[in-house]
Amino acid sequence: MKITFNANYHVSIFLICTFFSQIVLYGQQDVQTLNSINKTQHSISEDTEEKIEDILKKLTLEEKVAMCHAQSKFSTKGVERLGIPEIWMSDGPHGVRAEISWDDWSEAGWTNDSITAFPALTCLAASFNPELSSQFGFALGEEARYRKKDVLLGPGVNIYRTPLNGRNFEYMGEDPFLASTMVVPYIKGVQENGVAACVKHYALNNQEHNRFTINVEASDRALHEIYLPAFKAAVKDAGVWSIMGAYNKFRGQQTTHHELLNKILKTDWEFDGVVISDWNSTHDTMEAAFNGLDMEMGTGTDGLGANIANHYDYYFLANPFLKKLKSGEIPGSVVDDKVKRILRLMYRTNLSANRPLGKANNVEHHEVARKVATEGIVLLKNEDNFFPIEDKKGLIIAVIGENATRSMTKGGGSSELKPKFEISPIEGIKARFKNATILHTMGYESGAFNYDKVLPPTMNQDSLRLAAVETAKKADIVLFVGGLNKNHWQDCESDDRQQFGLPFGQEELLNAIYEVNKNIGFILISGNAVEMPWLDKVNALVETWYLGSMAGHSIADVISGDVNPSGKLPFTFPAKLEDNSAHSFGEISYPGVDMTQHYKDDILVGYRWHDTKKIIPLYAFGYGLSYTSFSLSEIKTDKKEYTQKDSINVSCLVTNTGAKEGAEVVQVYIGKPKSKVKRALKELKGYQKTNLKSGEDSIVTIKIPVNSLAFYDETISDWNLEKGDYIVYVGNASDNISKMITITVK
Amino acid sequence: MKITFNANYHVSIFLICTFFSQIVLYGQQDVQTLNSINKTQHSISEDTEEKIEDILKKLTLEEKVAMCHAQSKFSTKGVERLGIPEIWMSDGPHGVRAEISWDDWSEAGWTNDSITAFPALTCLAASFNPELSSQFGFALGEEARYRKKDVLLGPGVNIYRTPLNGRNFEYMGEDPFLASTMVVPYIKGVQENGVAACVKHYALNNQEHNRFTINVEASDRALHEIYLPAFKAAVKDAGVWSIMGAYNKFRGQQTTHHELLNKILKTDWEFDGVVISDWNSTHDTMEAAFNGLDMEMGTGTDGLGANIANHYDYYFLANPFLKKLKSGEIPGSVVDDKVKRILRLMYRTNLSANRPLGKANNVEHHEVARKVATEGIVLLKNEDNFFPIEDKKGLIIAVIGENATRSMTKGGGSSELKPKFEISPIEGIKARFKNATILHTMGYESGAFNYDKVLPPTMNQDSLRLAAVETAKKADIVLFVGGLNKNHWQDCESDDRQQFGLPFGQEELLNAIYEVNKNIGFILISGNAVEMPWLDKVNALVETWYLGSMAGHSIADVISGDVNPSGKLPFTFPAKLEDNSAHSFGEISYPGVDMTQHYKDDILVGYRWHDTKKIIPLYAFGYGLSYTSFSLSEIKTDKKEYTQKDSINVSCLVTNTGAKEGAEVVQVYIGKPKSKVKRALKELKGYQKTNLKSGEDSIVTIKIPVNSLAFYDETISDWNLEKGDYIVYVGNASDNISKMITITVK
Repeated sequence: MKITFNANYHVSIFLICTFFSQIVLYGQQDVQTLNSINKTQHSISEDTEEKIEDILKKLTLEEKVAMCHAQSKFSTKGVERLGIPEIWMSDGPHGVRAEISWDDWSEAGWTNDSITAFPALTCLAASFNPELSSQFGFALGEEARYRKKDVLLGPGVNIYRTPLNGRNFEYMGEDPFLASTMVVPYIKGVQENGVAACVKHYALNNQEHNRFTINVEASDRALHEIYLPAFKAAVKDAGVWSIMGAYNKFRGQQTTHHELLNKILKTDWEFDGVVISDWNSTHDTMEAAFNGLDMEMGTGTDGLGANIANHYDYYFLANPFLKKLKSGEIPGSVVDDKVKRILRLMYRTNLSANRPLGKANNVEHHEVARKVATEGIVLLKNEDNFFPIEDKKGLIIAVIGENATRSMTKGGGSSELKPKFEISPIEGIKARFKNATILHTMGYESGAFNYDKVLPPTMNQDSLRLAAVETAKKADIVLFVGGLNKNHWQDCESDDRQQFGLPFGQEELLNAIYEVNKNIGFILISGNAVEMPWLDKVNALVETWYLGSMAGHSIADVISGDVNPSGKLPFTFPAKLEDNSAHSFGEISYPGVDMTQHYKDDILVGYRWHDTKKIIPLYAFGYGLSYTSFSLSEIKTDKKEYTQKDSINVSCLVTNTGAKEGAEVVQVYIGKPKSKVKRALKELKGYQKTNLKSGEDSIVTIKIPVNSLAFYDETISDWNLEKGDYIVYVGNASDNISKMITITVK
Repeated sequence: MKITFNANYHVSIFLICTFFSQIVLYGQQDVQTLNSINKTQHSISEDTEEKIEDILKKLTLEEKVAMCHAQSKFSTKGVERLGIPEIWMSDGPHGVRAEISWDDWSEAGWTNDSITAFPALTCLAASFNPELSSQFGFALGEEARYRKKDVLLGPGVNIYRTPLNGRNFEYMGEDPFLASTMVVPYIKGVQENGVAACVKHYALNNQEHNRFTINVEASDRALHEIYLPAFKAAVKDAGVWSIMGAYNKFRGQQTTHHELLNKILKTDWEFDGVVISDWNSTHDTMEAAFNGLDMEMGTGTDGLGANIANHYDYYFLANPFLKKLKSGEIPGSVVDDKVKRILRLMYRTNLSANRPLGKANNVEHHEVARKVATEGIVLLKNEDNFFPIEDKKGLIIAVIGENATRSMTKGGGSSELKPKFEISPIEGIKARFKNATILHTMGYESGAFNYDKVLPPTMNQDSLRLAAVETAKKADIVLFVGGLNKNHWQDCESDDRQQFGLPFGQEELLNAIYEVNKNIGFILISGNAVEMPWLDKVNALVETWYLGSMAGHSIADVISGDVNPSGKLPFTFPAKLEDNSAHSFGEISYPGVDMTQHYKDDILVGYRWHDTKKIIPLYAFGYGLSYTSFSLSEIKTDKKEYTQKDSINVSCLVTNTGAKEGAEVVQVYIGKPKSKVKRALKELKGYQKTNLKSGEDSIVTIKIPVNSLAFYDETISDWNLEKGDYIVYVGNASDNISKMITITVK
């Protein structure tokens, strides 16, 4: 028996050394401990604070103001006479974007900006593996550093509220605890390189439709319990150096210059870094000045002022700000605070004496991308052990679907990438299956990529479908590689999906194939849940997300059995759209009426909604199959009664009862059946992934601070820990609980 | 009496601290001492050499080759998988050029690339002030560093051979000793910033006409005694980290891949840095590989391959080099040596742990620019104390001439700049002369700037002239601000001047003005000598060069008397073109016949020619007036007889016999009347500038190693010190010798 314990790991360069270790022993992080590490690692020394004060005294008002807004698409001015450098930024969350022109959105045409495309963050979250997130962040940060970026515009931790949100693929799913625990090591990994992470979009930016104008109304509970925790963890536990405002309004005010900044972020959480606007999310000088925005980027780039010479001077935090500072309408302390924060960011990045130099496109980064990809892929259905597929002579595999060849790094919005290479699914499958015969046909066509409109297909869809059916007829196995893509109205920034079902006639195609070949495995490429009325027609289904450079190899790893899948869904797949919380209250809840939406689902987002309302999902949060089987037994808590200061230690014997080595994620949810407030049936409070050989077992212990059971009490505007009985649910999915244990908080 | 001694100063940051000191006490550098300092400052430690060897082992052949040529207009590839950075370069010798597009010559359109324009190097040389050169280099290097450049493509030290050379303004005059002593502190100043200087153009690139095709034939003596010494000083005394090849051929072979590199530069001088081609000066893979070129830049940008995708792959040191390395035709050691040199440059620049961050556009840099400008301006004629002009009510000054308003930072070729500001002469004069009435009229028009052709004027020249005459009539004083400019066929890269006289009808204009106003001061803006048949018609003449950002203020400083001029001509002004050495032998000598030119003037360049051939120049090398007067007395050498190992200490009492504080340059020339070889009458071997108040005197001591009297003996291919009598000439100009002393070398 192997004892697996909940190690408090330190995110640091040593992780890279243990990189290729086959042992998967990932501790769930202890937030308290990490927090204390941060204070050492990330806080600015008194010496440096003094230097910053000294610099401040030397700056003119004009120089201070110039530091508070863009000088180009992705840079801000330094103070050249004093040697204070410029700040250079780049998108985005899963790879460093190509160089963009000085003053428009076109690519600059450089040839040194091809990078490693890492999997999008839904995949990272699905790994349920914080150490992997650390490696992801570190590798990504190394690439940003090599590309001479001071700020990397990511990660994104907006909560998955509706499967229609075009930008969900950039985020970490529907659960605030999962997102929090995954985002912290990511940020620390990036920042080890002297590159600031910029966690985004703060806050409540949970849909793309009407993103520039939508006003969100949500309760304080929903805000603090669902939508803010991952940001709080980024600040308090990861010590993130910058944060990005959002496009939307909250309670009638732009989130980019909102009391959410000064009150919660900067006061309650003691954030000492820089608040950066989203590109074109700033709307008002006085609000930007007084409500905590430090740096204005991208204003007017989508309209206002874009064609005016020196249009950066017209930014809200440029000349209008300067004028009000000079007139005294805005006191100097306001700009001083912003500049101090910017200088603090500089001392952490481009003024840091010990920045490493970064790397890019190295084998290690490709391996991180592949590891995250293979650990994040979720096996959803696998009738008759359809997967893994053995590569053997005589076997004919028909790979059908546009996604088998389509680039998923192009498009999608600001997270688009220019990778050094991108192994498509068909390339990966062909490289792995050398004995079998691989046939391939497109099946359907979605139309060329376009950012803000849908272009019609250029081919005859009937012909494509007929060709696919003919190909399927010849094959033993059909691998249908479909799903969504990075086009407008799919998984793409700037608008939401227009349908919950599969687009581009894929269902019709699947039905036609089913008529001639019933041995179908569906490789679903998406960053969102889709409706699956066709689910009975496929023997197997694997959610492979957007995987970046190593996509095809990673998919081949899993479907061949070289890697045993261990990913778990970071969000619920509802059976139908109306089952989703956001869609249960009509347009007032999504997408809003008269440019306002009310989060009627409140705290019951994702599985909280399904659990509490007893709406059975198609696939539940935390769900994911393996090629082996596990049993969870001897599940217990260390005590029955706890005080507020205690931690609950939940232990569980995990046994690999199947024939293959694999990893299982033990998940601990806790609920409070009798509460003075509305409660979700249960909420994720801990998890741990453990890798076991066939027949091996391991005791997993998960430590949960009792304090984390508190709810946000609107009557006192603070967290409140209710005494009484709680139920601890232990299982390997939110809908597959092996044991419930009642504990009492005294 | 003040004792002025010959300090061996160390070029370092402390100079900046003593920056505004009014005391001008500039030691002539001791080459031997500087050399030993270099060995500490610039040589690469054994540890680093080991690191370089280690890196070399990790590189693939493809990666090595990729480091040996451009990836864009001004950058080369790093090795991203290992974190080896790219190298970024920028023109040029007197300021950091604007950002250029990735793959064409257009400006990139950035708004953060405006810098300080420093005076062009003829002006710096005219200051005869090595400490000022150190400040110039340091300030320029700081700007390059702030702009994130690893290599600054300058200084230029090609010898001034003909006044028609369009690029003379970028160089340091006609004398190898002056150029050597001025270039060393410049380079050390630049490199203090972790930015490599790149001394250029090696070698014999002394005209622009037919520059891509011309073949130079010159003797070994001329090579070693005239054309190479400044390069040698850059290598041996300044420890320069890179050097640029030239466009022309020498003895039938391209200088960019010539035995001048491996034999002289890398073997004799032990240069351990990087040889960079000029942009498009590489012509052959085998020669580039074997003859010491390390890095190929700009090939095909003027024709070959420019429109081919991936055209950098077609570079001579790209795929063709790789192919020959793979086939064994070129041994691996060849590329290894190049890469080691490149890595060495990186450890000195972008891999250096202690690089400062640089600064730009700060007041200190503007003051350096102004100081160099005011110390470099040469007062050539000053009848009846025309200058300085007192600013008084009622005085009417007519400023006439296009150069009073024309930008001299635009144009000229690769040394063009985008300065943050450029004070024109008229602006500077108006700012200084607030009591006098300043009239201004253009007088003539030269046509808009164009790089490679002359555009016709757009205005009626007769009208301009008439207006100027009318203006002159109203004035007490005429300041004629004329000369050359940065247009094609003027002081501009890519071709030579087409006439020795003033262009654009200036002589006719001057004559017309003279008819109505005989009180004329000529402010001559040029980087070259001009013919002056009109000299009698002007009361005063001041050569002000190209002065950069502070041009107008600097001119006003001098003509107002705020600064007493102390510049000395770094090249001869011949009375007529045929008097110049290069032009004394017909086309075979300049510009060449059938694309070959023979340097028939041999070692007798500049004042060496005039002196030896007894051709009286219009203005001699080393000449320059002051508003005060000086006497040189008590001139003596410390001994009468010397051995080879001695130094000759020449001392002289300099007395300011006039009414104003000012600086004088004591110049020591030495000649050998009886020699077994042809000798110039005399050659500059030492100089020292000293500043004295009215009535003050100072003993100046100049130390000259006896070894520096050697000639290059072609019969032994080495330097040879003849024994016997030498004459030491001490004066304040090459044609104004106060005393001759005979000494003997035993």
